[in-house]
Amino acid sequence: MKCRACSRPAVIDIRRHNTAFCQDCFVRHCRDQVERTVHAYDMFGPDDRVLVAVSGGKDSLALWDILLDLGVRADGLYLGLGIGEYSDASGRYARDFASRRGAKLVEVDIPTTFGFDIPTGAPAARRTPCSACGLSKRHLFNQAALDGGYDVVATGHNLDDEAAVLFGNVLRWDLAYLGRQLPVLPADDGFARKVKPLVRLSERETAAYCVLKGIEYIVEECPMAEGNRHLGYKGALNDVEVRSPGSKAAFYFGFLERVAPLVETHATEQRADLHPCPECGSPTVSEVCAFCRLAEKARRNASRGGHPPETDSSTEHR
Amino acid sequence: MKCRACSRPAVIDIRRHNTAFCQDCFVRHCRDQVERTVHAYDMFGPDDRVLVAVSGGKDSLALWDILLDLGVRADGLYLGLGIGEYSDASGRYARDFASRRGAKLVEVDIPTTFGFDIPTGAPAARRTPCSACGLSKRHLFNQAALDGGYDVVATGHNLDDEAAVLFGNVLRWDLAYLGRQLPVLPADDGFARKVKPLVRLSERETAAYCVLKGIEYIVEECPMAEGNRHLGYKGALNDVEVRSPGSKAAFYFGFLERVAPLVETHATEQRADLHPCPECGSPTVSEVCAFCRLAEKARRNASRGGHPPETDSSTEHR
Repeated sequence: MKCRACSRPAVIDIRRHNTAFCQDCFVRHCRDQVERTVHAYDMFGPDDRVLVAVSGGKDSLALWDILLDLGVRADGLYLGLGIGEYSDASGRYARDFASRRGAKLVEVDIPTTFGFDIPTGAPAARRTPCSACGLSKRHLFNQAALDGGYDVVATGHNLDDEAAVLFGNVLRWDLAYLGRQLPVLPADDGFARKVKPLVRLSERETAAYCVLKGIEYIVEECPMAEGNRHLGYKGALNDVEVRSPGSKAAFYFGFLERVAPLVETHATEQRADLHPCPECGSPTVSEVCAFCRLAEKARRNASRGGHPPETDSSTEHR
Repeated sequence: MKCRACSRPAVIDIRRHNTAFCQDCFVRHCRDQVERTVHAYDMFGPDDRVLVAVSGGKDSLALWDILLDLGVRADGLYLGLGIGEYSDASGRYARDFASRRGAKLVEVDIPTTFGFDIPTGAPAARRTPCSACGLSKRHLFNQAALDGGYDVVATGHNLDDEAAVLFGNVLRWDLAYLGRQLPVLPADDGFARKVKPLVRLSERETAAYCVLKGIEYIVEECPMAEGNRHLGYKGALNDVEVRSPGSKAAFYFGFLERVAPLVETHATEQRADLHPCPECGSPTVSEVCAFCRLAEKARRNASRGGHPPETDSSTEHR
């Protein structure tokens, strides 16, 4: 197998592109794909300050690395979720990467700052761990971007992530969620711009990128995510992709091109009633925002030392 | 496990409805689901003559049986596809059912009538077997309905079929196909009305219906279908359904309720240029209709005794 770009021996093939690359050309390919995505969706300009949501996993570290290589003014934000050893290890990978690249890493630790952690806070608020975690991330990334004067929050969602989330939203035909599943969500009153520059790269490619660039990352899936629906959707789409390489990309980009414009209005309708949360000032449609309610219930439960019943809600909305 | 309707011992549970039934109540449940579907989508009235597309499999025989039990004027149509022993056995099941119910079965044999069979005709026309078969069925069911003065063609597509076809069409976001994926396609110039009264029943339920009613049917999948995309999509959705019972129904009916109305116009646009095929008179957008082209290529190839290369096309469009 030879590199399609330079004919040297290839180290990775990409079936959906019917191509293969050597190490150098693959790294350049990943960078080109991100650059192309940033331009195609007008994600940010050369003077914008970007806050990268860094988990310590392959996607977010690959994203941060590529953005720095492209000369983007990109700082990282790491959230401590309080998920035991998993969080400790994730944080170390994020910090090590930042110090090796000489990049700035902002840290927010949920347990010390807000007095709860995801494993006990989620059931206290009758949410699944993934739901409580996703809600906390969306809230705190946004808050940190606004507080730090960043123009945009960049997350490491890759093609597999987006296709799986799309699949979940399509299975329920939730038009409000579908209308917001875009690689760019523009800034709005109280909301920073959100962008997903990795949507043209699969998770196999971000993993290979890290390995080939010598970036160490946490390989384990989050222990709280085991068996969640999102992973089920990923598995189902993986089966389809194996039979028909390119299915995921056709699914996701076909949606963006031909269907998102038809459902976009459904997303904006929901946002009509936004007002500032009396607790934290974040825009919300509820009386108190979902994060402050989660934190309040989690703290109340922690002070009682109790364990409430059953969980609900899911994690497909991004 | 007790029957939810009458508390006798249950013989089958239906997880997506969170219910279970004894034999009698299950048979009644299936009949009710079909009756409800026929009314909900205004598929046909008491005086309409219905032509049931009968393959000899569980779905089409269950459909025909239920329609007869509901007092519908339903004749059957069996197409001989020339797929060796599979076709021979399928035909016998169809004929046996018809004679036991004293119902009328119309038969059209493709090899004797049109001079080709699916296994050799498909590659001659550079189609997959499932593509050539689906095309032939759509054409000949329609033709037989018009010729026989039937008001409507009823097919045995069940919930699993429709969800899998929808999944395939959604993966490609083919809006023209999506706009036509409805349980009723109205009659149009040269097209009989098409209805799918089994869309509220899963294939596990149609199989159980046949077993419990003592209807014998061909259990084997068509040997030509092995490994086709449609079965892959079914498998992927089955994985999702096992984790979240009800996913398929939510997917299919959510589409019908909330999305089909948004894409319906895309389907009608395609039909603007219809004219009669010079060979057979069927409406077509091509010069000669797809079935006549298939038959012509298949016969030409048969007379040469040759085998042309490679196949193309898929089977998701219904």
